Amino acid sequence: MADEQPPKAVVLLSGGLDSATVAAIARAQGFDLYAISFDYGQRHECELRAAEAVCRANDVKRHVVFPLDVRAFGGSALTGEIPVPKDRTDDQIETGIPLTYVPARNTVFLSVALGWAETLGAYDLFIGVNAVDYSGYPDCRPEFIEAFQKLANLATKAGVEQTGTFTIHTPLISLTKAEIITQGLQLGVDYGLTHSCYDPDPQGRSCGHCDSCRLRLKGFAEAGLTDPIPYVPG
Amino acid sequence: MADEQPPKAVVLLSGGLDSATVAAIARAQGFDLYAISFDYGQRHECELRAAEAVCRANDVKRHVVFPLDVRAFGGSALTGEIPVPKDRTDDQIETGIPLTYVPARNTVFLSVALGWAETLGAYDLFIGVNAVDYSGYPDCRPEFIEAFQKLANLATKAGVEQTGTFTIHTPLISLTKAEIITQGLQLGVDYGLTHSCYDPDPQGRSCGHCDSCRLRLKGFAEAGLTDPIPYVPG
Repeated sequence: MADEQPPKAVVLLSGGLDSATVAAIARAQGFDLYAISFDYGQRHECELRAAEAVCRANDVKRHVVFPLDVRAFGGSALTGEIPVPKDRTDDQIETGIPLTYVPARNTVFLSVALGWAETLGAYDLFIGVNAVDYSGYPDCRPEFIEAFQKLANLATKAGVEQTGTFTIHTPLISLTKAEIITQGLQLGVDYGLTHSCYDPDPQGRSCGHCDSCRLRLKGFAEAGLTDPIPYVPG
Repeated sequence: MADEQPPKAVVLLSGGLDSATVAAIARAQGFDLYAISFDYGQRHECELRAAEAVCRANDVKRHVVFPLDVRAFGGSALTGEIPVPKDRTDDQIETGIPLTYVPARNTVFLSVALGWAETLGAYDLFIGVNAVDYSGYPDCRPEFIEAFQKLANLATKAGVEQTGTFTIHTPLISLTKAEIITQGLQLGVDYGLTHSCYDPDPQGRSCGHCDSCRLRLKGFAEAGLTDPIPYVPG
């Protein structure tokens, strides 16, 4: 029918390079986008401002910023208890579980997103996890995503009453950062709106030295491109 | 060794009859208890006061009240959008998914509890789900719990590095309310500290007519006992 509504998708949106690309991919697949960002007491509110900018650029129908203060539990650099590591080598970044690991983070984020999706009648969830650059995070692996998808269909009224089947989409899971950037640019993503740095300066400029900056800069370099966001000189 | 610390367990504690019983069971099994309650914008803060009382009675080492405002998503009587149903028959209570269903609630609660458990180095989570009286809730079924346990071990650093294996304990899952009460009394649970009503009066007295009150009163009656908490007359 000509007046049928597009299907709804819930997109987990940090405001970073990866989730901005995921939003563009979901939109290109014909979904109406409902974006959720988490305010988990992170140092960089820049992330949330970037998420809002990405929403405007992607005609997002509704953007929820869900407060989720995992600082109560401690244990991660992202939440301000450990200094952000700088200038780690690729080997250090890619080996082992990162210092910036937040306990059970993607499990919590996906669970909350699932609750919202069920309320909206959305059966498609998009998340920008990546098993290549962040191989150390247990909750970025395909087997984790498969287990969550199975759980989602057991956990919900919609799953039980078979009114719909939840799918967790991870379009970036096996892409390098350079491939992500290339695909995003083909879809018109403005990476100037995005924010990745774990330790920006007061003007919101990226540090260029944390793991997230290094992976981002390496991705642009490997794609033969220049990152459009501002960095602190030096 | 004589000076070895007891293992830690995270107990999901609502302050209701079921979770108070679960806390007593976990304590009787020799765990040091770490309790987590969720403030999800529910009408009855009585629940949280009851949770605190249950913690004191069980020598809980730490009690976290985690704010989690699911009202942003709408869709459930427990969060104030739909009137609490009253005087439903047993058949109405036991058939189908209850009106008080909160989307993905146990998934979110268990995920947050898992994050805390990982931080604490606790590998045992206790939750008072029950597949008998609340058979309509998809996230109270054994297959949901099994799927979550599998997810927990894939999602976490502890699971990946095999420093421990998470177990989700559901000691009440196949018990009737009368059996839960009988077991709790054997362990010394003071049910006068607990709160179950979805719609208490301003003095905190239970209504006696919502699904939760009816199941509770039926449980005490079937156990041949009188519920010690105050009810609104009539």
